[in-house]
Order: sequence, then C-alpha cells, then structure tokens
Amino acid sequence: MVTRPVPTPASPALYDVCSVGNAIVDVIAECPDSFLESYGITKGAMTLIDETRADFLYQQFGPAVEMSGGSVANSVAGIAGLGGHPAYIGRVKDDQLGAIFRHDLTASGVHFSTPPAQAGASTGRCLIVVTPDAQRSMSTYLGVAVDLSEKDIEPQLVGNAAVTFLEGYLFDKPEAQKAFIKAGTLAHAASRRLALSLSDTFCVDRHRAAFGELVRDHVDILLANEFELMALYCLPTFEEAFAAARAQCSIVVGTRSEKGAVIAAGDELVSLAAEPVARVVDTTGAGDLFAAGFLFGLTQGCPLSTCGRLGAIAAAEVVSHYGPRPQESLKDLIHRKGIQL
Amino acid sequence: MVTRPVPTPASPALYDVCSVGNAIVDVIAECPDSFLESYGITKGAMTLIDETRADFLYQQFGPAVEMSGGSVANSVAGIAGLGGHPAYIGRVKDDQLGAIFRHDLTASGVHFSTPPAQAGASTGRCLIVVTPDAQRSMSTYLGVAVDLSEKDIEPQLVGNAAVTFLEGYLFDKPEAQKAFIKAGTLAHAASRRLALSLSDTFCVDRHRAAFGELVRDHVDILLANEFELMALYCLPTFEEAFAAARAQCSIVVGTRSEKGAVIAAGDELVSLAAEPVARVVDTTGAGDLFAAGFLFGLTQGCPLSTCGRLGAIAAAEVVSHYGPRPQESLKDLIHRKGIQL
Repeated sequence: MVTRPVPTPASPALYDVCSVGNAIVDVIAECPDSFLESYGITKGAMTLIDETRADFLYQQFGPAVEMSGGSVANSVAGIAGLGGHPAYIGRVKDDQLGAIFRHDLTASGVHFSTPPAQAGASTGRCLIVVTPDAQRSMSTYLGVAVDLSEKDIEPQLVGNAAVTFLEGYLFDKPEAQKAFIKAGTLAHAASRRLALSLSDTFCVDRHRAAFGELVRDHVDILLANEFELMALYCLPTFEEAFAAARAQCSIVVGTRSEKGAVIAAGDELVSLAAEPVARVVDTTGAGDLFAAGFLFGLTQGCPLSTCGRLGAIAAAEVVSHYGPRPQESLKDLIHRKGIQL
Repeated sequence: MVTRPVPTPASPALYDVCSVGNAIVDVIAECPDSFLESYGITKGAMTLIDETRADFLYQQFGPAVEMSGGSVANSVAGIAGLGGHPAYIGRVKDDQLGAIFRHDLTASGVHFSTPPAQAGASTGRCLIVVTPDAQRSMSTYLGVAVDLSEKDIEPQLVGNAAVTFLEGYLFDKPEAQKAFIKAGTLAHAASRRLALSLSDTFCVDRHRAAFGELVRDHVDILLANEFELMALYCLPTFEEAFAAARAQCSIVVGTRSEKGAVIAAGDELVSLAAEPVARVVDTTGAGDLFAAGFLFGLTQGCPLSTCGRLGAIAAAEVVSHYGPRPQESLKDLIHRKGIQL
C-alpha cells in the first residue's frame, strides 16, 4: 500500500461533502429501444452532444418532463436528504433552466453559491431516454457547465468540507482538469479528503492518462462501477482492476449493479448485496445515490459496511421512480431500514 | 329549448378540436396541507398571482418537477393521444419554458402555430401544490399567456375545427374576452360548434355577467363541474343550475368528481359513474382530460354515453399519476376498455 494516510483535520467540517460537477437539467422521456437505434444513441452511456444535436434529438422526443440532475449534484441532494450538510460547485447560466437547477438544489438543502453566468452558452441539459428495461441512455449538451475553471473552486467550501467529491464527467476540458487539481490541493492543505467518481467508461477512455495521474496523485476515495475500473487500468477483470485501485487510493468503492458492491479501505474489505427493489423504473442516478449514501456514512464515521448499506438503500430508492433525485425522505427511509446514525 | 340547432358544416373538419387557452408550464411539488395554510393558498382552486408572488412561492417550494400544462392545452394533448387531430392557440414567449411548452404540445401531435412573443413577460407558469389527499391547489403567474387577443385567433384553425374549445381561465382580460367572441363568430360562420370550459368557480365569480352573456349568446357546448354551474347561475343546487344551462346550450356536461357526470344534449340525458381508479395520486388535469375524451367522442359521432365514457376513462388515467397530461396511450387504453372508434 502506498496510499496517503487518512488526514486529521484541524477543525470539524462545516460541510460533509462538497461536490464539483456538471450542473445539468434532465429532460426525461420514455422511448422504445428502436428510438436508440434510429438516432444512434449508445445504450446505457452518456454521450456528449452539441447544441444542434441537442435541438435535433429534443425535436424527436415525445412529451418530456424536466427535473434537475447532474451526477454529483444528485449525490449532494441525496446527502441533504439523509440529513447531511453538503455544498455544490458548478456552472449554470442566468436563465430559466439555471433558475430551476438552483432552486431544486437549494430547496434540497444544499449550499450552492457559484454565481450564474450572465452571457455565453445556456444552462446544460441532458436528454435522457428511458427504455422499457429501465435503462437510461443520456445525450448531454453541457452548455455553460463546461466552463468551470479554477476560479470557481471556492476555498471556503473545499477547505471546510470533510470530503470534496469530483465528477469524472467534468474532466473533458483542460480548465476543468486544472480546477480538479486545485480542489484536491486545497482539500489536502486543509487535511480533508478528495473523492472522485469515474462517471462513465467512455469518459475514462477519453482521458485515461490524465485520470490515471489524478487518481494516483490526488484521489483518496475512488468510486466507480466495474467497467469504469477495468477501463481505467486497462485490465480484463474486475478483481484485477479493483486491486490496482486499492494500491493507489485509501478507499475504493466498486459498484456492480444487481451484483452489489465491493468496498476496500486499506486492508479492510466489505462485499455487499444490492438492496431489493420491487420494480426498477429508471436507473438514472443509481450510482450518484450510492455515492451519496456511502460518502454520508463515511463522514458520519460509520463502519464501512454501514456506509455501503446506506449507498445501496439510497440507490434502491432512486431507481424505483423516474428522475435522478430521491422522492421520499432518505432520512426516514434509513430509519425504517433499522439504521440509526 | 331556445338553443342553436346543431349546424351542418360545408366541409369535413381538418381539426377535431381547436383549443384557445392559457399556455402554461406546470411546476409541481408535493407539500403537506400546512404549506397551504402557511402561504394562504386556497385548496383546490386556481389563484392568479403576480411574478413577485410566483418567485416567493417558488422559493418556498421543495424540489419540483416541470411539465407542460394549461387547461385546454391538456385537453388537446389528450385528444391527440386518443387518435384525434387537434390544434391549439395560446401565447408563450421565446424563452426556455416557452420552448418546453411548444415541444411537448407539438410532440403530442397537436398543431400549434401561435408565434412566440419576442419581448415582454415570460412564459406563464403554474405552481401546483399536490397535498397527500391528491388534491391540487394552483397559483398561476400567467406571464405572456394573458396577452392573447383577437389577432391570435387564426381563422384557418377555428374555421376548420369541428369544435373550438375556449378556456374560462383565459377570460380575465378584456382583450381575451374579445378574442373569445371573435373565435365564436368565426366558428359559427363556418357552421362549426363553440365549446367552453368554465374552469373554476372563482373565475366564474370574477366575471359572472360576461360569462353569462358568452354562454347565452355563443356557446353550444358547456363543460363545467357542479360548483361552477351553480356559481354561473347563482342557483343553490346542481339540478337547478344544470337545468338553467340546458335551456341555453345544445350540450351541457356537468362533472361531479367521484359522483360521475351528467350530460344533456337537447332532450337526451345521460348519467355516468366515475371510472374506478386504483389510487388517485394527483387530480391535476382531471376536468381537462374529461373534456378531451368527451369532445373527441363527440367529433367522432359517438353516442352521448360513449362520449362520457371516453371522458371518464381519460380523466381516470390522468389522476393516477403526477402531472396534467396522459402518460400512456389513451388510444390503447380505450381499446383495452372495449371501445372501438
């Protein structure tokens, strides 16, 4: 093990988690599988698109529903729902979708003070096709979200958050990559921890070397699904990739959909079954809410197995309905499941 | 009976129904009853609010979901879902919510060619509180919707629609009242029929005299719930108010929530039970979708009882989920219910 020791901060954290991510409003429509084929959408993936393609795809959509989304924004909304105190850094424009994003995040109980852009591209949006198998396929026009840079990383948030949580999806632009390094440096200077979600295999494939350096040199807590881990380390099995990640990060969380999750913290290893779900309606947000439960448990000092269970329960809630954010009180839900924090 | 005879148009209608109404995007949040008390919202009613109040109430809302709405816009979306060919006239702005409204209506299969406003107030929105009893309480900032005037009444739509369907909610401004008269005049000149939804008791109370004249002099088909009919005629019982309406309109549809509906066409009288619903989730759109089913049946030449049954089935679908528009194919649904058109 060459991992960084768990730091001891000088003062208690004001925020449990501060997420840095793509601020996105989701546009959700149910479509048959043939829709994906007709318009060349990769099933289960997140594909970046430009505004022309976004307008075209939206025209092909049936009637849709708009809900605030964004991967690690969903996570902090979940952490607030669990009773935590999270913060968020991300870029919206001063437009109607930006106001919706800000409202929903703030109303969830998340501190969000990144000022809206007054000019340039509009607030980002993600066109989500939900097929009858509950799988979501995402086409994202990032809009102004992609303009996140070092100056958006507020030191008073990152320095006062027990964990700063970075979204792999944001890693496409050099300015955002610099912002990630700044966030990591600030977090570690305050003896806080840095977490990263790998977000998507295609995203990992686009930036494997840079992701590799980020994980090796900065990340304390790595969250990824099995395919993202295998993509990051170019290794053919989950077990090998997971071992490679353990050698680099203090904590590694590998999620495996209905096969549950594997979590390692130093020498400790926990395997978890997936939480049963009566009917999976829409898998959007499953990984984001697993991260919410896990990171919330971690910042509350729970044992690793409880952290994982919190993640599994939060993920099970979000896949049981349309949309990427919890629709019932996660705090009440975990109490009903017998977990007292 | 002093009602107008059912006219015989010169040519078949291009459109089954052309609705004229408030183009509105709904912002839906679940809230406890205490929310209504805290912010002085009248339960079950639609209250008009200004932008300041809309902004204030929205700030008090928890995380919300955005869906296109607007009373008679919901009706034409339902008619399209039943397999009909409807059109819509209403005002949105050239902004993000306006684009959402236009997209959803057009994607439903509704012809909508009213050009968006380039300046002035933004697209209207309706803040809908859904309480645990499934009742909806609406606070509406009409925005640009209220600017509808005679010039928006497209003769090629009204003249080519079997029924032109007016929304009582729109009746607050003198310009809109003039637009209604123009729509009625154009419809009758083309030997088409004019329908009106009374929309809301408070709306009727605000403009009782003007509504009375409109109904007496122009309306062929009157759709209202029992309380709206009693308000219009200042009569203490449903039976008396319904009789007063029958004396003025060729067709009167009186809806009574779980007590079903009563429909009169000349001497013919039909009473209908409400369609059973496993769980009523959100009553938003119930009246709008009853109107959709009824008017669609009427334009297809169905017997009065079938028209009513179509209304009851469409209303039952929309109250079984959140949001004011159908989420499954109404065409498939009525086939499953054994109705062949």
